[in-house]
Amino acid sequence: MGNIRINQQRLWDSLMQMGDTGQLVDHGYTRVALTKADKAGRDLFSEWCSQAGCSLSIDTMGNLFFRRAGKNDELPPVITGSHLDTQPTGGKFDGVYGVLAGLEVIRTLNEHDIVTDHPLEIVVWTNEEGARFAPAMIGSGVWADIFTLDYGLSRADKEGITIEQALIDTGFKGDKACRVKPVKAAFELHIEQGPILEQEEKQIGIVSGAQGINWLTLKLFGKPVHAGPTPMTGRIDPFMALPGILHRLYTIVKECDDWARVTFGDISAQPGSRNTVPEVVTLAIDIRHPEDATLSAIASQMREIIAEECAAAGIDYELDDDWLSPPIQFDTQCIDAVREAVNGLGYSNMDMFSGAGHDAVQIARVVPTSMIFIPCEGGISHNPEEFASSDDIAAGANVLLQSMLAMAKA
Amino acid sequence: MGNIRINQQRLWDSLMQMGDTGQLVDHGYTRVALTKADKAGRDLFSEWCSQAGCSLSIDTMGNLFFRRAGKNDELPPVITGSHLDTQPTGGKFDGVYGVLAGLEVIRTLNEHDIVTDHPLEIVVWTNEEGARFAPAMIGSGVWADIFTLDYGLSRADKEGITIEQALIDTGFKGDKACRVKPVKAAFELHIEQGPILEQEEKQIGIVSGAQGINWLTLKLFGKPVHAGPTPMTGRIDPFMALPGILHRLYTIVKECDDWARVTFGDISAQPGSRNTVPEVVTLAIDIRHPEDATLSAIASQMREIIAEECAAAGIDYELDDDWLSPPIQFDTQCIDAVREAVNGLGYSNMDMFSGAGHDAVQIARVVPTSMIFIPCEGGISHNPEEFASSDDIAAGANVLLQSMLAMAKA
Repeated sequence: MGNIRINQQRLWDSLMQMGDTGQLVDHGYTRVALTKADKAGRDLFSEWCSQAGCSLSIDTMGNLFFRRAGKNDELPPVITGSHLDTQPTGGKFDGVYGVLAGLEVIRTLNEHDIVTDHPLEIVVWTNEEGARFAPAMIGSGVWADIFTLDYGLSRADKEGITIEQALIDTGFKGDKACRVKPVKAAFELHIEQGPILEQEEKQIGIVSGAQGINWLTLKLFGKPVHAGPTPMTGRIDPFMALPGILHRLYTIVKECDDWARVTFGDISAQPGSRNTVPEVVTLAIDIRHPEDATLSAIASQMREIIAEECAAAGIDYELDDDWLSPPIQFDTQCIDAVREAVNGLGYSNMDMFSGAGHDAVQIARVVPTSMIFIPCEGGISHNPEEFASSDDIAAGANVLLQSMLAMAKA
Repeated sequence: MGNIRINQQRLWDSLMQMGDTGQLVDHGYTRVALTKADKAGRDLFSEWCSQAGCSLSIDTMGNLFFRRAGKNDELPPVITGSHLDTQPTGGKFDGVYGVLAGLEVIRTLNEHDIVTDHPLEIVVWTNEEGARFAPAMIGSGVWADIFTLDYGLSRADKEGITIEQALIDTGFKGDKACRVKPVKAAFELHIEQGPILEQEEKQIGIVSGAQGINWLTLKLFGKPVHAGPTPMTGRIDPFMALPGILHRLYTIVKECDDWARVTFGDISAQPGSRNTVPEVVTLAIDIRHPEDATLSAIASQMREIIAEECAAAGIDYELDDDWLSPPIQFDTQCIDAVREAVNGLGYSNMDMFSGAGHDAVQIARVVPTSMIFIPCEGGISHNPEEFASSDDIAAGANVLLQSMLAMAKA
C-alpha cells in the first residue's frame, strides 16, 4: 500500500470549495465557531463524509466523529482531525487542511478498496480558534478532560450566547459523551503557521512535541497627573518602567536559543487620555519554549527583570499568571510512523516543535498523538494571505495516508 | 481701595453650592458641557449675577457675559472668567473657581460702593473641558477667531448632538456675535492643576505665559505573525523599537530643564491579540515647553530618535503632527498688575508658566491677558480629590480684585 497516493486535484478543489463556505470579509474568509458560516462548512463536510461512506456521531461539545469501519471494528480507531472554524479574518488552510486531508485519505482508500484493520475516524473539533468563545481548543480540551463539560458548554461570546446555546441553534448538540476513549493513534496535519520549513526549504515537518506557553498580564500602576503642569521629576509614570522591561526581556529570549519566544501582543493605557499620565498600563506577555526547565528559567528571569525595572522607576505592578501550558512530548510510535512515511515517500523534512496550540496538543495528553506540518508561504496565517502550495498540500496528505495505514494495522 | 478684601466665607460657600449643582458620580461631580447639570450651574450663576446687579448678554456660542457698568461705560471692559463645565468626573474648583471669584469681586465692590472707570465683565466660556465636544476651549476659541463659528457650532458629541443643538436645547443659544471686542485687560484665576506651588510653598503663581504644546501620534508598523511558530530573528515587531524611543525621549526631556515635558497618555496595539505580533502599535505623544526654540529643538530631536530607533529595529513608522499650540507670552501690563497686587497683599509668590490649556490662553492671542494660579492639593485635578484651601481661594480672589481694580482705572 506504500505506492498509493491521494488525488492532489481533488484535495485542492475541496479546500477551495470549503473556503467558499466562509463569509468573505476584508478579502479574507470567516467561519467563526458555530456561526451560520461554520454550520454551512460542517454541513458540507458531513455531506462529503456521508458520500464517502462514513457514519457520523456527535458529542455533547459538538465535536464531529466521522467513522470508517475497520476489519475488526472493535479495535480502537486511528483518528485524524483538526478544525473547520476560523479566525474572524482567516484563510483557507488553517485547520481546514487537516480535516479535508482526512477525508481525502478515506476517499483514496475507498478507490483502492482498502479496508484497514483498525477503524479510522476524522474528527472536527469545536471552537479551536477561540475567536468567538474563549479559551481556544475547547472541544478537544473537554474531550481530553482539560476542561469540564459544564465549563465548556457555559463559555459565552460577547453577546452572552453560550456554546451550549450555539450548539442547539446550529443543530450540533450531540448526545454522545464528550470524553476520551481508547484510540490507537491520533494525527493532526496542519500548515506550519511559521516560516521555518520555508526558510529551511523542507516540505514536511516531523513534529515531535509542542512548545510550553506561559501567558501573563503585567499591570504597571502610575499616578494620573496632567501632562502640562506636572514636572517630570516626581511623576509616577508607568511608561518609565517599560523600556527596561521590554529591552531586557527581548535580550534574554534572543540569547537563549532558536526556540525561545517572547511576544507582546496587546497593550493599553487607562484612562488613555493623551494629556494625562496613565493610571495603568496593561501589557500582555506570551513566552514559549519546548523545554520545561528553560521555560521556567525564562519566566523567573522575567519576574526579576520586572521587579528591578519597576523598583528603579518607582512603579507598583501586578503580574498575573493567566495560563501555563507545559511543553508536550508527542508519542514516539506516532512520530516514528510519520518519519517512516516521509522517508518512504522521499520528501525533504526536518524535526521540529509546534509553536502554536493545536487540538493535537490537547489530546496528546490522553492518547498517542503526533503532528505533521507543511510549509505555508511567508509563515503567514490567521490572515487572508495565508497560502500553501498544492504540491505541499498533497505531500502532507500522502504522509498522513501512509502514517494512518501503518498505525491501522492490527 | 488697596485695603478692601473679598468675603472668604461667602466665596467658599458659593463654590460648595455650585459644586452641588453637579451630578454626583463616583464620588466626583460632573457638569459636562451643555448637559442638564451644566444648565443648572449656569442658571444658578445667572441668578447670583442678576442679584449682584449685572446685566447678561449671551453670544452665539453660548458664552455668557455678565456686565457691571463702569463710570464711563464706553470704555473697553476689564474682563475675568473661566468655565463652569467639568470633566466627566471632576472636582469643585477647576474653572468654577475663576468664575465665582469674578462674582465675589463684584459683590465686594458692591458692598464698598465702588464703581470702576472701566466696566467689568465676568465671562463663562462654553465647553472648556472638551469632554463632551472636542476640541477643548471651543467657546473662547471661536471668540478669539481660532475656530470659525460654523466649526464651533457643528462640533458633535458621541450621540451626534451638535453644540448648536445643545445650546438650543438648554436655552443658551445667544444672539450676540461671538467675536473678539475691545478689552482693556483680561484675567483668569485658576487652580494650578500641578504640584509646583505646593512644593515651593508659594500661595500665588504669577503666570507669565503658557507652555507650547505639540501633540503627535506615532504609528509603528509590524508584521502580524503568530507568537508561537515564528522565531525571534526575522520578526518585524513594533515593540522592538519602543524601548529605545521611550528611553531616549525621556532622557532628552529630563536633561533639558524643569519646564520640558513629555507624556505618553495612550497606547494601543492592533489587532491586539495576545499571541500575534502587532501589525500596528499607536502611541500618543505630548511634548511641552514654554519657549518656541526649545519646543522645536525637542521635537526635532524626537524625530531623529524615532527615525534611528525604527531603522535599527527594521520598523516602518508614521509620525503625525496632530496639534501644535505655540508658547504664549501673556501681556506685560496684566502680569505687572498681578505682581503689584500680590506684593501689595504680601502673599508668597513665584513666576511660572501655565502647563495646561485655559480659556485665557486662547484669548491671550487677541486681547491683553494674564493668569493667576493658586496651589491645589497634591497637584491633583480632573479628579474628585481635587482640593484647594479656603485661605488660598481667598488669597487668589483678593489678587484678582486688586488686579482688576488697577486695570479698571481710566
